[in-house]
Amino acid sequence: MHTTGRQIVLAARPTGTPKSTDFRLEEVAVPEPGDGEVLLATRYLSLDPYMRGRMDDRKSYAAPTPVGGVMEGEVVAEVVRSRHPDYGIGERVLARLGWRTHAVCDGTELTKLDSRFSPVTTALGVLGMPGMTAYTGLLTIGKPQPNQTVVVAAASGPVGSMVGQIAKIKGARAVGIAGGAQKCAFVKGELGFDAVVDHRSPDFADELAAACPNGIDVYFELVGGGVWQAVMPLLNQFARVPVCGLIAQYNNSGQPEGPDRLPATMREVLSRSLTMRGFIVREFWDQRPAFVDEVSAWISDGRVRFREDIVKGFANAPEAFIGMLDGRNFGKLIVEIDED
Amino acid sequence: MHTTGRQIVLAARPTGTPKSTDFRLEEVAVPEPGDGEVLLATRYLSLDPYMRGRMDDRKSYAAPTPVGGVMEGEVVAEVVRSRHPDYGIGERVLARLGWRTHAVCDGTELTKLDSRFSPVTTALGVLGMPGMTAYTGLLTIGKPQPNQTVVVAAASGPVGSMVGQIAKIKGARAVGIAGGAQKCAFVKGELGFDAVVDHRSPDFADELAAACPNGIDVYFELVGGGVWQAVMPLLNQFARVPVCGLIAQYNNSGQPEGPDRLPATMREVLSRSLTMRGFIVREFWDQRPAFVDEVSAWISDGRVRFREDIVKGFANAPEAFIGMLDGRNFGKLIVEIDED
Repeated sequence: MHTTGRQIVLAARPTGTPKSTDFRLEEVAVPEPGDGEVLLATRYLSLDPYMRGRMDDRKSYAAPTPVGGVMEGEVVAEVVRSRHPDYGIGERVLARLGWRTHAVCDGTELTKLDSRFSPVTTALGVLGMPGMTAYTGLLTIGKPQPNQTVVVAAASGPVGSMVGQIAKIKGARAVGIAGGAQKCAFVKGELGFDAVVDHRSPDFADELAAACPNGIDVYFELVGGGVWQAVMPLLNQFARVPVCGLIAQYNNSGQPEGPDRLPATMREVLSRSLTMRGFIVREFWDQRPAFVDEVSAWISDGRVRFREDIVKGFANAPEAFIGMLDGRNFGKLIVEIDED
Repeated sequence: MHTTGRQIVLAARPTGTPKSTDFRLEEVAVPEPGDGEVLLATRYLSLDPYMRGRMDDRKSYAAPTPVGGVMEGEVVAEVVRSRHPDYGIGERVLARLGWRTHAVCDGTELTKLDSRFSPVTTALGVLGMPGMTAYTGLLTIGKPQPNQTVVVAAASGPVGSMVGQIAKIKGARAVGIAGGAQKCAFVKGELGFDAVVDHRSPDFADELAAACPNGIDVYFELVGGGVWQAVMPLLNQFARVPVCGLIAQYNNSGQPEGPDRLPATMREVLSRSLTMRGFIVREFWDQRPAFVDEVSAWISDGRVRFREDIVKGFANAPEAFIGMLDGRNFGKLIVEIDED
């Protein structure tokens, strides 16, 4: 057992795209669990786009990470010492430890991972926060009806891939947007979307229109920016737009250049009776048991497929995270801590 | 009885603010009713902001008025000749005749106005489309809870005045925005809003913030533009924004200047789990009986007050309409046709 653990802290608030110097790897003593506590060793760290928001000093749904503070995040951890009656050595749990190799917890915020989480990394992706974001946002806000058209960008990623697959299960038509031939082939061939469009194509807007001959009834917003401009003219009356991510604008700073695109968006909201609804998955936390039951069954049936992009080595987390913001991951991005 | 009627047609599509030359008054023969038809004489013509949208050749929830076509609109009309068994001379009806002094109808799209519509002009305002827009949008989309804060602009107008008064009846706090001291005094003193802010004040945004110490839970969007910029930072988590008008931007043409304000709005939608929902009152047409029953009772009780701005003379409709787009009316704008 190591007596020295590691953590990655926010070294500086990024301006625009984060740089590796905005993060700092620190060595810290591994703490001793007290009575009623466990010592956890992180096995897998989840990297997710929302973390970019916490790096800015801006009012949002969660407080920003302070400079010098440990980067936030969910992990799959293993109990390595236990002075808690409910947790035995070797048990796997889901925990919000942040970017740390070790932590002591009293058990109140741990979720045990049963055999449905196989492999255990699914607890961070398809059966975790990203999968549940897709499930709750699509079904509770998007409400796709049979034969309606559901569009999602970042369609090879952990949220987008689930949005399209759940839309298909509900009888809707799924159109994905992804970047590059490899991801597009995966979305259509492996995930079974009805159509896929490459947002890097110079004819992207026309190709999206061609892929949506009956317009768009649900646009699950993960990216913002230029994709929204291509989607907006295609939205049908009463279309629903669950808004749960804006990765294309997370790295923007300052006042974006004109023209001012807000009036046109407001006009479409009005003239087509659109619903735009922001949400954070924890709003729907009471749906978690139903989500895990239903989606784990869909995985067993082969109706839901998923892809994980596992980067080895705790120290590689910052570079992997920076690459994700640029779309360089392919599937749910997870850091495996294999040095222990 | 006149044998010559009049109508006002769209002479040219306006660029920006409509001019009087964008309209043309025409004389036309009064038609004869056939079997099963009635001849209607317009008594009151409703002027409403949505009509500006129909003057543009732009895809919206309704087809544009063609150049040379009669301006659209709702009227209170009187049956002056009848060859229809259900309609007697002198009966008052609500009809979509457009800007015309006379028309023949077969009765299928007429609504008889009973004694609850007193004065009969209420059928165009507090008990008509504007009142019902407020009632349905506020209660179905805005869902104000007791002690929550509801904000509406154009608060002395027919929709805004009802939004605030219904919010009060439901136990919420009503904050109005209006232009000028006279309208502001009316909103607070006569309509009983809890607070009112003048959007012409140089300190408008600060004054709005001071009037909303607990933030904003429902913003009923009628105006767009600068008011939205002042409202947005005050919206609480899970705030609802029924969007049913954007009068501040109806006269805009071309691409508005930057900065691009869309990314900031999208960020707020996401980070505060906002709901923005466009709607047109006809979506909720099945609520009309309940609306008329409930609001006419509130008027009788003195819980709802209303103000009408009646302009005499059919030929004055274009100037009155142009003035309304600039906020120069004070109350529900109606043209009385008194020459008959």
